[in-house]
Amino acid sequence: MYLAKIYVTYKPSILDPKGETVKDALHRLDYQAVSDVVMGKYFEIKIANDNESDVRKMVEAFSQQLLINVNMEVFRYELIALSTAV
Amino acid sequence: MYLAKIYVTYKPSILDPKGETVKDALHRLDYQAVSDVVMGKYFEIKIANDNESDVRKMVEAFSQQLLINVNMEVFRYELIALSTAV
Repeated sequence: MYLAKIYVTYKPSILDPKGETVKDALHRLDYQAVSDVVMGKYFEIKIANDNESDVRKMVEAFSQQLLINVNMEVFRYELIALSTAV
Repeated sequence: MYLAKIYVTYKPSILDPKGETVKDALHRLDYQAVSDVVMGKYFEIKIANDNESDVRKMVEAFSQQLLINVNMEVFRYELIALSTAV
């Protein structure tokens, strides 16, 4: 069993309107030290398979197929092995 | 300068409808090994302040004030010190 933590953000060349909105709101709340905001999506996905290489292939495939818009977004991920036996 | 990476997810007691939808979609795509999906928000926020304790206070304050719905969501974060001088 693996836990995949997947982070999806816009490509650097794409305008991030939600991030800009959050930055403006933080400035209005007087957090002037905030210089840059990126807002993205975050997934925690548990996968019942103990072969790390299979899990990596699976995560990369379904992230491209379903989780991201490949034209505008990029993803990165990390895997955490969960112990299933007690 | 610090980079704060902030992860916002629903409290465990709150139904996560987007996560359930993604899980169903992955099952329909034949990723039956996926057993659990949590979907949340992810922020990368740069803060022009070099005092770590100040930055922590700021991140905790504005996350509660603006980034999360305190009734339904929780957040965790990590700080990365960015070097500003060259």
